Amino acid sequence: MNHSLLQLQSEHACFGGVQRFYQHDSSEIGLPMRFSVYLPPQAALGPVPAALYLAGLTCTEETFMIKAGAQRVAAELGLALIAPDTSPRGAGVAGEADAWDFGVGAGFYLDATQAPWATNWRMESYLMQELLPLLGQSLPLDMQRLGITGHSMGGHGALTLALRHPGRFQSLSAFAPICAPSLCPWGQKAFANYLGADPSVWAAHDASALMSSLSTAPFPGGILIDQGLADKFLAEQLHPEQFEAACAKAGQPLTLRRHAGYDHGYYFISTFMAEHLAHHAQGLGVSLG
Amino acid sequence: MNHSLLQLQSEHACFGGVQRFYQHDSSEIGLPMRFSVYLPPQAALGPVPAALYLAGLTCTEETFMIKAGAQRVAAELGLALIAPDTSPRGAGVAGEADAWDFGVGAGFYLDATQAPWATNWRMESYLMQELLPLLGQSLPLDMQRLGITGHSMGGHGALTLALRHPGRFQSLSAFAPICAPSLCPWGQKAFANYLGADPSVWAAHDASALMSSLSTAPFPGGILIDQGLADKFLAEQLHPEQFEAACAKAGQPLTLRRHAGYDHGYYFISTFMAEHLAHHAQGLGVSLG
Repeated sequence: MNHSLLQLQSEHACFGGVQRFYQHDSSEIGLPMRFSVYLPPQAALGPVPAALYLAGLTCTEETFMIKAGAQRVAAELGLALIAPDTSPRGAGVAGEADAWDFGVGAGFYLDATQAPWATNWRMESYLMQELLPLLGQSLPLDMQRLGITGHSMGGHGALTLALRHPGRFQSLSAFAPICAPSLCPWGQKAFANYLGADPSVWAAHDASALMSSLSTAPFPGGILIDQGLADKFLAEQLHPEQFEAACAKAGQPLTLRRHAGYDHGYYFISTFMAEHLAHHAQGLGVSLG
Repeated sequence: MNHSLLQLQSEHACFGGVQRFYQHDSSEIGLPMRFSVYLPPQAALGPVPAALYLAGLTCTEETFMIKAGAQRVAAELGLALIAPDTSPRGAGVAGEADAWDFGVGAGFYLDATQAPWATNWRMESYLMQELLPLLGQSLPLDMQRLGITGHSMGGHGALTLALRHPGRFQSLSAFAPICAPSLCPWGQKAFANYLGADPSVWAAHDASALMSSLSTAPFPGGILIDQGLADKFLAEQLHPEQFEAACAKAGQPLTLRRHAGYDHGYYFISTFMAEHLAHHAQGLGVSLG
């Protein structure tokens, strides 16, 4: 047990389970990092499957737990929820907080290779090599049954981490994800600074490029994506049609639902949260006995 | 129609309905005031019943709509949700923002009689004489079917406004309400400053005092209150036992549920929100077809 590595910041009873906020010293990031976990009532009886949620630009480990209304459904399904922060904080890199779409709150769930970001901006290694193993050792979570989802930048994170780490996640969904970061301003800014100016190295972190390189569907049970049609970022930043085409090319079943009137925020996310968690429950073999 | 008096600040599709934020120039307050409304899908067909939610100290018109997870249930029930701000803002009264529990964000849903607060701090007249009539004229709301609820200071507001305005609200509930403000530090500070030092005038704004003065139950269908037992404000500030005793004296049916482990925040509120809205739906004669 590695409980001692996790510093419990607060906990709150919620739908019969418990909402917790933790801090720990991350060796991958080199700084303290925060995350939140919701444990459903079933976790009192033994390890439960979990869904990892990656948030969007400017968000923290708290955003999803406050705004998404997910705990009610998670408690019904017996599913834990895990929400990390969106970047290192407190690194003191010059310019790290000058823009809302880059640096602090904008880690893009990858390991930067370029100075001055490469030292701390290691969100992929942090999540995959440090946080998830630590959670599996410390909390009643069945890490062999783990889904991943996310919103916007976090939707990009969910799609790319699921494709870059085959077998790690058994279910995948996203809300209004950045589907082709190499083709949009948010992604180009992040990739150029974190990964360097050569676009040929960007493809390894571009969900549409990753998917179109595959000849076998990595998620034969299907991927679920919801996208609002009143989302002001849709045309310039998100490009779901790129991912749709890549899935078709790879033979990957995709349910991409386009919703008239819905925008990019949590009123949209909360509306469709129950269906996403049901998708993960199905992919993780949760029985609703 | 008084649409022109309401300035729509933003709107968001949510569970098939629409979440709106408005500002308007309040004559009662003498300043611009903000509020939020959730209209369920049924409001597209005609006026719907509504529940007015009064928030607690430091909150705004946004808190409930972001954190409570109420829209899902409201959409199912065909119930609108109305959430005003918690005080005037921008009055410029000296010291108005010096304390988190008094002044800005702490209007206590009453009309101040004491200088310098009496000019702007008129939340009771604002809600009852201005906002509710304006909403009834401007939006598809059936103001003859109106419930009231709230949290903490807003629970005090819900209980006192319901008792001070017989017949205006057809259903009543509260989350962790301040039940006897004359007896607790938050209430004593607010009442002394807003109403003056004489405690004899406080009783008219004290839910337990109001209830214990009645000889007939004002809500024969019952009042619903939920209270967490891990609420750090329970012992000093809330005094539900005072309201319980007053209801018993008045013959008022009360369901007061005490929940082990739950605290004072929105993880508690969201857990029991569906049951509160169902209580209002029943009191407002909503048929679930």
